[in-house]
Amino acid sequence: MGIWHMARIGFIGLGVMGREMALNLARAGHAVTGHDAVPGVAAGLAEQGITPARDLAHAAEGAEFVILMLPDTPQVEAVLTGPEGLLPRLRPEQMVIDMSTISPVATRSMGEALAARGVAMLDAPVSGGAAGAKGARLSIMVGGEAAAFARAKPVLEAMGTKVVHVGEIGNGQTVKLCNQLVCAINIQAMCEAVALARASGLDPAVAREVLMGGSANSWMLENLGPMVLAKDASAGFRIDLKLKDLRLANDLAFQKGVPLPGTALVTSLYLEARAHGEGSNGNQALFRVYDRMTAQGG
Amino acid sequence: MGIWHMARIGFIGLGVMGREMALNLARAGHAVTGHDAVPGVAAGLAEQGITPARDLAHAAEGAEFVILMLPDTPQVEAVLTGPEGLLPRLRPEQMVIDMSTISPVATRSMGEALAARGVAMLDAPVSGGAAGAKGARLSIMVGGEAAAFARAKPVLEAMGTKVVHVGEIGNGQTVKLCNQLVCAINIQAMCEAVALARASGLDPAVAREVLMGGSANSWMLENLGPMVLAKDASAGFRIDLKLKDLRLANDLAFQKGVPLPGTALVTSLYLEARAHGEGSNGNQALFRVYDRMTAQGG
Amino acid sequence: MGIWHMARIGFIGLGVMGREMALNLARAGHAVTGHDAVPGVAAGLAEQGITPARDLAHAAEGAEFVILMLPDTPQVEAVLTGPEGLLPRLRPEQMVIDMSTISPVATRSMGEALAARGVAMLDAPVSGGAAGAKGARLSIMVGGEAAAFARAKPVLEAMGTKVVHVGEIGNGQTVKLCNQLVCAINIQAMCEAVALARASGLDPAVAREVLMGGSANSWMLENLGPMVLAKDASAGFRIDLKLKDLRLANDLAFQKGVPLPGTALVTSLYLEARAHGEGSNGNQALFRVYDRMTAQGG
Amino acid sequence: MGIWHMARIGFIGLGVMGREMALNLARAGHAVTGHDAVPGVAAGLAEQGITPARDLAHAAEGAEFVILMLPDTPQVEAVLTGPEGLLPRLRPEQMVIDMSTISPVATRSMGEALAARGVAMLDAPVSGGAAGAKGARLSIMVGGEAAAFARAKPVLEAMGTKVVHVGEIGNGQTVKLCNQLVCAINIQAMCEAVALARASGLDPAVAREVLMGGSANSWMLENLGPMVLAKDASAGFRIDLKLKDLRLANDLAFQKGVPLPGTALVTSLYLEARAHGEGSNGNQALFRVYDRMTAQGG
Repeated sequence: MGIWHMARIGFIGLGVMGREMALNLARAGHAVTGHDAVPGVAAGLAEQGITPARDLAHAAEGAEFVILMLPDTPQVEAVLTGPEGLLPRLRPEQMVIDMSTISPVATRSMGEALAARGVAMLDAPVSGGAAGAKGARLSIMVGGEAAAFARAKPVLEAMGTKVVHVGEIGNGQTVKLCNQLVCAINIQAMCEAVALARASGLDPAVAREVLMGGSANSWMLENLGPMVLAKDASAGFRIDLKLKDLRLANDLAFQKGVPLPGTALVTSLYLEARAHGEGSNGNQALFRVYDRMTAQGG
Repeated sequence: MGIWHMARIGFIGLGVMGREMALNLARAGHAVTGHDAVPGVAAGLAEQGITPARDLAHAAEGAEFVILMLPDTPQVEAVLTGPEGLLPRLRPEQMVIDMSTISPVATRSMGEALAARGVAMLDAPVSGGAAGAKGARLSIMVGGEAAAFARAKPVLEAMGTKVVHVGEIGNGQTVKLCNQLVCAINIQAMCEAVALARASGLDPAVAREVLMGGSANSWMLENLGPMVLAKDASAGFRIDLKLKDLRLANDLAFQKGVPLPGTALVTSLYLEARAHGEGSNGNQALFRVYDRMTAQGG
Repeated sequence: MGIWHMARIGFIGLGVMGREMALNLARAGHAVTGHDAVPGVAAGLAEQGITPARDLAHAAEGAEFVILMLPDTPQVEAVLTGPEGLLPRLRPEQMVIDMSTISPVATRSMGEALAARGVAMLDAPVSGGAAGAKGARLSIMVGGEAAAFARAKPVLEAMGTKVVHVGEIGNGQTVKLCNQLVCAINIQAMCEAVALARASGLDPAVAREVLMGGSANSWMLENLGPMVLAKDASAGFRIDLKLKDLRLANDLAFQKGVPLPGTALVTSLYLEARAHGEGSNGNQALFRVYDRMTAQGG
Repeated sequence: MGIWHMARIGFIGLGVMGREMALNLARAGHAVTGHDAVPGVAAGLAEQGITPARDLAHAAEGAEFVILMLPDTPQVEAVLTGPEGLLPRLRPEQMVIDMSTISPVATRSMGEALAARGVAMLDAPVSGGAAGAKGARLSIMVGGEAAAFARAKPVLEAMGTKVVHVGEIGNGQTVKLCNQLVCAINIQAMCEAVALARASGLDPAVAREVLMGGSANSWMLENLGPMVLAKDASAGFRIDLKLKDLRLANDLAFQKGVPLPGTALVTSLYLEARAHGEGSNGNQALFRVYDRMTAQGG
């Protein structure tokens, strides 16, 4: 699709994920100016080829692509459409790519506000975690105009191996949330089976083997099943991030008027996990909720 | 393990599944005497090599293996330990193999009652449906003593391709129920994602493609996903059978003291489906529950 | 309605509730023959005016009313329609009153079996607990023919103050189960409010006061609210009995094809309570489930 | 507590509720300047004694009490702390009373921002609906400093009959949300009982009578039960307002880390109602969700 060229990129949000993504862009030969709300973070990446920005405006100035990797909706809104945001400074030849996981509804609003100024926006949330970010092996789900997608694709491919266009602006976020709710519920299914097997005197490892051979199989059963059986709660994809995404999914369901009782229920169970200090454990640690509910040592 | 020999088999329960399984045993060279509670059913299989039994006792008489394939726990109890049941007639050289899907707790009770008379029992529920039964491609999950399993294995292999020993008596049923609850919840996860995608303006086929490529993937998404997208409710594994299994899973959870809120919830949703006349549709027709809940045509 | 006369009564089931009820019948002047599956129990009540029965048949022999107060459906079935049951001995001038809480569906089956022999049956489950039984202040919900109800009413009034005819056979059980599921869910509502208030820094006692003054008020908030606030888990109506009733309600919902997701969910939470050894605590101890789920000391 | 005096009041938000509350303040002798985001609304109340404000600033200017009655959190934030908000204009002798139902967490943030400028704030959400607003019979749950409450009480008493101080700022909102979740779940309990009764052949009116006499009783059963039995879905407290409050309750639970599975579930069911066009029906219309789930005409 797009032909590679060296691009000027402003990268805003240099946290655990963002810094690795920015570094991959720099390694790919792009000119990356970086900014983070935490002072000193951008400067710390200077030796690795990121030009530290004095401020938000500096990061965006003259950049063909302004890429955001921020914690949640309010931070993205602040950077783009807030009172101190970039909106009045952006120009039609620039494009905003928001790679954060945030509200699809807010994404669409911001997309409209930018479009009104002639600025294209893509939402491009990722999956694959810190390891995927570091290894440039992220999956990137992109919403927005086809032409904008085509223009951005070579840049995105410097950060991930699977870059998929999923329709109009906001759809990237929606597909990400669909992904997250399915992951959560599939984990819950596995945990219920393991809890029932254990309480019934059936070796859960045997149960898993059998289930993997048939219609109950899932990526979760295959990949996180061994951790569940070993009672290994370590991250992986952290429970507090999972909860953030589940909150966004519940909010979207509410705004679109879709009853999602399964998503609502599993969110409650993840809240139980967080209440027990498991926020930084991996999302398979839902098994500990079931351990606690069945009064098994956990 | 076991060496093949021609066995005398009494087969009780010649319904949609049972008749195919009995015929496969006959085709494999075993001497099968068949019985069904519905008069004439056994006689109708005579030309295909099943000897019709006059009554229950006749079916069991002289059989090395007495195999049951019946609708639910009460029928199995009636045949084995009920007032008119086989228990007093069974002899230590005989073995009972219950291939029905029933209560693991009742299974254990019956296993003990038979063991007290020196009769071995295996529980060996199957998955794979009518097609698997016909094609001798069932998965068979077997609980009971290892020696009994070894003796029965060649017989079971005439009916299925995957014959797995999963531990003591009752475990076959338990693993089957674990399988069923995971299937149900994984379907629910898929349906919630599809409902949310649709309501948000995202093509659910695109969502499925993306989800299949990552940690949200499942056998259900791969295999029943296309039916869900095409709004195809046809069976497949019927909702009323799914409900029967979910009831058994809920009962087992109750008896073992395991809270399974996800299983309880999805059971409610399948009840909604049955209330709308979907009992003979396939279990992926849960998507119609979500269509109804979101007031989409369904 | 009915005019009082001294009646001959066979009373089967002399547990915590049954013995008090039988004693009240004796105190009211009826001739009570008692039987319990546990040897010696009936004999122990002889000095208080209960004639101990040699066996089940003896208890029923010549009794105008055969009253049952048993733990669950299987025990009632064993006494009435099981292989050793009373069914063949009962005569049209006799009436069976089952005051146990059991399955409405099984109740109807037994009612039909008895009716086929010309024997009237009422189902008459009670509420009010051990204290109500002792003080003859039970609420009694009676299903069955109006004429049978009229005949039995004076006898029932020796055990309770509120004796209500709720329609045909089985309806007594149904209304009891409706009562129990509403109680459970109303308790859950209270516990969720208390948990949310506490976590938000609002004194739950203040919240209760406000809620009692408006549309959130309930018997539970008024009567068990103080125990919840004081973290008093003592019985009261025991959790294991509540769970038995909730299981019956879920079973009835399943059999009638009614999705009751709220009942299914609260049953899961009560299972959590039982798993933590709270079976003999009062049903308001559901608050401890929420304490545990929020990692509050519990 | 406080002694009555004629106060100057700025009233912001003159919708269905707000206009009645403002009029009651005017009738009580206070000098009320009114403002609404919809042009002309304030002017329309001029003949009834409300001085229309030119703009937000005008409404607040010189007012002892600035009262807000707005749809949701963003509107309150816009009026108080947003870029065009009143915050920089407010002075220590002024007090803000927010009578909207909004987020307790956002309320606390705004309370702190105002306190930093020496301005006292109360949150004072109401219950009692349009009729209560009109008749000055609202219940008003007030959070904030005791001294501020004492000062505001006479003003609040012009709008409601029950004015309760429930602790610090934000607690008014929290107790309101506790109230709303209990109301929703108690309605659900009633609807499940009615659905089960109906499907089981028990007259739900009889069931209600029995339940009202015992531990299953609730304000909802007493007051909205007749509407449920008559299949009367009319408002009353509207489902879309209920959903707004349930969303706030779920958000608060999320922020405070409290798993509220019952609240989450009933929210899903109310979403089903809204999806079926019931948003402007009364909140007892949850019974129609159960009618639909059981395939009863609804």
